Amino acid sequence: MRVVLVVCDGLGDRPTKTLNGLTPLQAAKAETLDRIAVNGECGIMDVIAPGQPPGSDTAHLAIFGYDPFKCYPGRGAFEALGVGIDLEPGDVAFRCNFATINEEGIIVDRRAGRISSEQARVLAEALRKIKIEGVKGVQAIFHHSSEHRGVLVLRGEKLSRMVSDVDAHKTGIKVPKPKPLDDSLEAERTANALEEFLEKARKILKDHPVNRERIEKGLKPANILLPRGAGTLPDIEPISKIWRIKAAAIAGGGLYKGVARAVGFDLIQVPGATGTVNTNLRGKVEAAMEALKNYDLIFLHIKATDSVSHDKNPRKKVEVIEWISRELTPLVDEVFDRGYYIAITGDHTTPSEVGDHRGDPVPIAIAGPGVRRDDVKAFDEISCARGSLCRIRGMDLMKILMNYLGRVPLFGE
Amino acid sequence: MRVVLVVCDGLGDRPTKTLNGLTPLQAAKAETLDRIAVNGECGIMDVIAPGQPPGSDTAHLAIFGYDPFKCYPGRGAFEALGVGIDLEPGDVAFRCNFATINEEGIIVDRRAGRISSEQARVLAEALRKIKIEGVKGVQAIFHHSSEHRGVLVLRGEKLSRMVSDVDAHKTGIKVPKPKPLDDSLEAERTANALEEFLEKARKILKDHPVNRERIEKGLKPANILLPRGAGTLPDIEPISKIWRIKAAAIAGGGLYKGVARAVGFDLIQVPGATGTVNTNLRGKVEAAMEALKNYDLIFLHIKATDSVSHDKNPRKKVEVIEWISRELTPLVDEVFDRGYYIAITGDHTTPSEVGDHRGDPVPIAIAGPGVRRDDVKAFDEISCARGSLCRIRGMDLMKILMNYLGRVPLFGE
Repeated sequence: MRVVLVVCDGLGDRPTKTLNGLTPLQAAKAETLDRIAVNGECGIMDVIAPGQPPGSDTAHLAIFGYDPFKCYPGRGAFEALGVGIDLEPGDVAFRCNFATINEEGIIVDRRAGRISSEQARVLAEALRKIKIEGVKGVQAIFHHSSEHRGVLVLRGEKLSRMVSDVDAHKTGIKVPKPKPLDDSLEAERTANALEEFLEKARKILKDHPVNRERIEKGLKPANILLPRGAGTLPDIEPISKIWRIKAAAIAGGGLYKGVARAVGFDLIQVPGATGTVNTNLRGKVEAAMEALKNYDLIFLHIKATDSVSHDKNPRKKVEVIEWISRELTPLVDEVFDRGYYIAITGDHTTPSEVGDHRGDPVPIAIAGPGVRRDDVKAFDEISCARGSLCRIRGMDLMKILMNYLGRVPLFGE
Repeated sequence: MRVVLVVCDGLGDRPTKTLNGLTPLQAAKAETLDRIAVNGECGIMDVIAPGQPPGSDTAHLAIFGYDPFKCYPGRGAFEALGVGIDLEPGDVAFRCNFATINEEGIIVDRRAGRISSEQARVLAEALRKIKIEGVKGVQAIFHHSSEHRGVLVLRGEKLSRMVSDVDAHKTGIKVPKPKPLDDSLEAERTANALEEFLEKARKILKDHPVNRERIEKGLKPANILLPRGAGTLPDIEPISKIWRIKAAAIAGGGLYKGVARAVGFDLIQVPGATGTVNTNLRGKVEAAMEALKNYDLIFLHIKATDSVSHDKNPRKKVEVIEWISRELTPLVDEVFDRGYYIAITGDHTTPSEVGDHRGDPVPIAIAGPGVRRDDVKAFDEISCARGSLCRIRGMDLMKILMNYLGRVPLFGE
């Protein structure tokens, strides 16, 4: 028995004026999503807790069955895993922005004029020669990911993720120095190693031909690195081991690949899966159908619903939902034909009139053999609330699914 | 953005024979309450936990977002704050009854023949001269509250709330001595100080002119004090600080004022707000409307629904609900006009055929911008259970409301 878990990022929404008081899910003609609801059991889900706005990273940890309050290891590690770095226990990883400072050292652009991936990749290459000398036994690994984004990993003994963000999500201020966030030797070593790396990076970036060229063209130079979100590998039992299953993840965005890798999913790479509205969703769906041959649990992540919500575009969200519904059709057909399970939900609510994560619950529908089919006829936030799942927590979802797969051991006799 | 939280004490009920199988909320014609339900999202709420009868104090702690299992500091502190005593950390406060013992020292009336406030106030004045001499560094503060009720505060170093109730809610027994409930020096000191106070009070009350006069008139003398519910200030972060809001409370009953003060609400005093069925509800509603100008969160408590439930008077409860609904109308109009939020619920169920608190959930409705309006048409225990909030916990309510106000920080990224 197998299960496909489809998570549409930021799917949950609120009744919206632009849509005459409907939520985007209510407004969308999404036959395939509704078909899962009609054939399944429906409910609403507090991904973290009622009223708690989840980040995408903590949300996915919860959906995969891990308590983020206990095991959230910072975002950096997920980013590192997502760009393909084989993170090791003890490594401390940071998300980094290429950014622009002016001659007084003030941050003027956190994204270096949205530098292209091509140019950023050349700069990243130049940063790879940096060696940490002031802190013994520490090595720096720098990886470009996309556009102005990169990942820095500090590897070596006695490191800690308890160091402050250099990127404060603000412009108009001087670049702060990384500071240890506790009294440990480890935090101090990490802050010192990070500071040395940033200082050496600044020198390399200052006179780099790419930046000279950008300045000549009137573009902002990528003359500083801003790390944030120090993270380590989470100390957890892999999902495949907990439930004795083969688990595969299909995602475009690096973060989602990273969380999935961190908890023990195999990653299925799909060309053109970008984590944007232009993603190769058809390719991802085909990969999921293919994965049904070999895997017990297939996690399919679709980012576009969140992106258009952050853009405050409810009408576009309706379109994206309809597109997702169409593209999912062959997968849902296949799952229904084979008598497998499919669950569809979101990782959090991003109201498209707010443009940011909120703590409202998300709708969920689970179809498959033996589920308690209710009379919910549409997959949306309000219809699903009347369903037979009632209101559940994100952390309980994986066990609910594994229960259908007969994978949850009896407690007691 | 602002929110009004209306709590009708003991509002929840059960289907009742006197009302042809309807609950008082179902039987009442309460248009304004129904209007909140029609325009809002509805649900039922386990204030503490399913099946757990809450006290009014623990219920309100939970509704304000505090886990009463972790931070319930005993009722006495709330009573003390409610009557206006500026309780200090380390103080131990007791609710006290003026009561009557006969010549054998047996308790014959726990309320001293329901002595008037006027007479009790004179007695209380006489008790203020008591000095604790047997326990070093401890001072006694006695405050009359209403009718037979008062509050005693022991102030000084090394005190503890771990002392037994003297008032066992029983008549026909001898007055028990206060006992330490653990082996600490603090509990022993507190029990000793309390015993000394009670002994001195007994001597003062015995020959007090007020009591002589009562005996002459054939009334029961208030010749003994019965303390109970030892309590201290809860060790919590104030609600205003947690959510960075201005929070105001409007209540008649001392306990509710006390809980609200203890968790950091500003108290708005309303003349004639008595915490009874004769309260100045119109004045309270006007105060709430005024408070909307300056406060983000306004807590409005109405006690009358509980009082008539304890009196086992379902018909009267219907009347009280209809009265509340009428009186709330201008407030609800104002909230709807301004596009603010309003939530209405109870702090526990007091079935009017039982006459005591029970653990059944209470109905809840939340109206305001972006709530997931469902098709619930009436505000009652059974209609609301089909709403889009499903079933929530009391402790989750504050975060749900603060989420609508955009006050809950993201967890993760």
